[in-house]
Amino acid sequence: MPEQSKPSITDPKLEPIEQLEAILSTSDNHKLESFVYEIPSGEMARTISLLDEEDQKSLLTRLPADAAAWIVEELSHQQAADIIEELHPDDAADIIDELPSDEQADIIGELDDDDAEAIIEKMEPEEAEDVRLLSKYDSDTAGGLMVTEFLTFLGDTTVGDMADNIRQNAEEYHEYDVQYLYVVNPQEELLGVVRMRDMVMCRPEVKVKDIMMSSPKFVHVNDHLDFLEDFFDAIFFNAVPVLDEQNKMVGVLKRADMEEALGDRSERQLLRLGGIIAGDEMRTMPTFPRAARRLAFLGPNIFLNLIAAGVLIYYQNTISQIVALVVFMPMISDMCGCSGNQAVAVSMRELALGLVRPTDIWRTVIKEAAVGIINGLILGILIGLLAWGVGSFDLGPLQGQPNIAPMLGLVVALAFFFNCIIAVIIGGTVPLVLKGLKMDPAMASGPILTTITDVCGFALIFGLATWLIIP
Amino acid sequence: MPEQSKPSITDPKLEPIEQLEAILSTSDNHKLESFVYEIPSGEMARTISLLDEEDQKSLLTRLPADAAAWIVEELSHQQAADIIEELHPDDAADIIDELPSDEQADIIGELDDDDAEAIIEKMEPEEAEDVRLLSKYDSDTAGGLMVTEFLTFLGDTTVGDMADNIRQNAEEYHEYDVQYLYVVNPQEELLGVVRMRDMVMCRPEVKVKDIMMSSPKFVHVNDHLDFLEDFFDAIFFNAVPVLDEQNKMVGVLKRADMEEALGDRSERQLLRLGGIIAGDEMRTMPTFPRAARRLAFLGPNIFLNLIAAGVLIYYQNTISQIVALVVFMPMISDMCGCSGNQAVAVSMRELALGLVRPTDIWRTVIKEAAVGIINGLILGILIGLLAWGVGSFDLGPLQGQPNIAPMLGLVVALAFFFNCIIAVIIGGTVPLVLKGLKMDPAMASGPILTTITDVCGFALIFGLATWLIIP
Repeated sequence: MPEQSKPSITDPKLEPIEQLEAILSTSDNHKLESFVYEIPSGEMARTISLLDEEDQKSLLTRLPADAAAWIVEELSHQQAADIIEELHPDDAADIIDELPSDEQADIIGELDDDDAEAIIEKMEPEEAEDVRLLSKYDSDTAGGLMVTEFLTFLGDTTVGDMADNIRQNAEEYHEYDVQYLYVVNPQEELLGVVRMRDMVMCRPEVKVKDIMMSSPKFVHVNDHLDFLEDFFDAIFFNAVPVLDEQNKMVGVLKRADMEEALGDRSERQLLRLGGIIAGDEMRTMPTFPRAARRLAFLGPNIFLNLIAAGVLIYYQNTISQIVALVVFMPMISDMCGCSGNQAVAVSMRELALGLVRPTDIWRTVIKEAAVGIINGLILGILIGLLAWGVGSFDLGPLQGQPNIAPMLGLVVALAFFFNCIIAVIIGGTVPLVLKGLKMDPAMASGPILTTITDVCGFALIFGLATWLIIP
Repeated sequence: MPEQSKPSITDPKLEPIEQLEAILSTSDNHKLESFVYEIPSGEMARTISLLDEEDQKSLLTRLPADAAAWIVEELSHQQAADIIEELHPDDAADIIDELPSDEQADIIGELDDDDAEAIIEKMEPEEAEDVRLLSKYDSDTAGGLMVTEFLTFLGDTTVGDMADNIRQNAEEYHEYDVQYLYVVNPQEELLGVVRMRDMVMCRPEVKVKDIMMSSPKFVHVNDHLDFLEDFFDAIFFNAVPVLDEQNKMVGVLKRADMEEALGDRSERQLLRLGGIIAGDEMRTMPTFPRAARRLAFLGPNIFLNLIAAGVLIYYQNTISQIVALVVFMPMISDMCGCSGNQAVAVSMRELALGLVRPTDIWRTVIKEAAVGIINGLILGILIGLLAWGVGSFDLGPLQGQPNIAPMLGLVVALAFFFNCIIAVIIGGTVPLVLKGLKMDPAMASGPILTTITDVCGFALIFGLATWLIIP
């Protein structure tokens, strides 16, 4: 073994990636395993993404399945899936067997159907069944978010027998932080819930049906994240049972998992606003698919931009006579776009908070118009004064026409004023309209807004100029 | 009482807001209370926001404190604070007394210091102390996110005595879903944690110190959300004890509350990308403050836009000779801005996932440049062909110059190609640089990117035209 490939594991001067690569270049699997547990949780995703594909593969196959699963849990589902699908299905299945059921389903959901099936076939039968169950449901529903690890008992079980069962299975239950026990009938229909704390106060011979909370709260597998958010808002429990279409209990939805899903959704929205379709590009992916994904969004934008270009072609004669106005095109286009985006952001937030509905368009128009008039007036006057100034020192072909500089200022100010009002009204209402049409407001609001503000802005500035200035 | 103000409470044709207004116009407080509990959780925030200020005030003062607290819990902290600060401090204190400690601190944190102090003084002494404790900490830290309701016992307490205590206080503990019990010494220093489930398996005479998990995991009051996210990633527990600077146990941080805070942060980022400083505008606020808040962001944008305007003034002579190029200004400006925003979004996400760090600039430049070259080439050729076409039917003052149409296409294509590469590189790296400078990437990336792509885009198109076309 060459000398330079043997740095100390704990050398604080080396980054985790450097140390990991050094250890991977040896054949010391024991050292590899202990080092993996030393990588700080916040460094894991980046460290793994910096390894080349071969090293990622060799890392996960050389480690015992539970250590490999430890790594996989620290990665985003997509990053995990990208690495898992390169492994042999046997190795992949061993690692996935070690994950909690909701993570299993999330990662397998990111794989191609063929890869997924190959791995599920190699998994332990019980785990495989859970994955098949969970992957039937959309990831934004209770069925997709639930865990399938939960404890059920028949109503006639005594508290003492329940405690015995929990003790016997302590190791298996260790990771699931059981907080409630569920009472079912032989058809697995939910009858009640027992809190651990209520068991503490009981003598062992008491039957669970006598201490359970009957008519318990529950959700259905197909209940959507929006409903679940409201549901948890209204209750104090940290977890609720999930029933399938036949009212059979099939899982438990934890409050923390619901909150995590809400957070993920906001983050996807953030990315979608930037126009990445599917919202899951990472720079570790190959270049061409990344470029293609971005193009898919940019392409249609050309056609929207053609409308604005059309307006400019229409006014080409005016433009050639008052070139000074060209100087103010980007200002009107950018600032009004910006004003409109502010309105988009407020609407998106109010939609998320449940403060507006798609039918509240008229109220939004009035509220936005008020702000648009104030800001359009203030900024319009400012920009108009700038235009007056520019007009005073360079008049182009219109030199000598009386009052040309103040007229230039007036045209720019008026164009900005009206376009600003249009922008905030469009920006405020487009997300509501898209939501009403069941489209994604995050992705489409921006391009629609920009196109409309550009078209109106250019039409206003050159239309007003044609009317007020051209002799 | 006039006839029309007495619709049935359960009239399904009326919106909750209409029914609520009708009931408020009567003096039937009992009906008011029972109706409030009927409002679906998802409708509450909007319904309350639609009431005028007087009705909001009268609603909360006419209801018993626990029913009023029920409403307040359904509102965002800021909406709640806006209404609470209009109430008499006595009424406000009664309502806030009914909320869980973390909600109390969050709402009071939104109030002016004077209003907050007036309310805290009227609260129950114990609750007031908790609020003062929690509001000492930043809302993004364990201290700001924890709840102060938790159960501690000395190590010599027997399981039987603990169970008795829990039973006696069952009502008080009802809402807090106790899952762990904490073992401390007389100085309130944390010694261990007992899971409810471990109590279930014990005889009553066992001492808690013999069944506790010793050297338990904990966090400190000042630990930041980023740290807490990684911390919870690496453990299975649903809640951890929070220690203060003297290692005294002062609260419990629940996983669900940490996840909720992460989600809130993504949503604030979403709003900040749209340029709302402070990120908390709602349309129920008065118009002038809303306008002023948005102006605070738009104002500085004028100065950034002046740089782009300067470039256009510099090239005014070229513009007046090749007006056809003006038609392609918005296309280059919008599409490159859009490409850059895609890169911003990917960097923001990778920062959030811990996949990049501020020092990874060089790697990001290479990854983005690769995508920029591909997309710049494809879209540049497309837009160049469009420009060639436009040049063929309207040449302006340059009519008759040989090859003017294809030259126009070449200039537009080259300008787009280079500007697209610049845009994705700037877009990908600016969030990292801002993060490295401890600034907020969500708020500043957009305007910086747009200014640079505009300036470079206009300089490229008219610079190339001056060099290649102007005779």
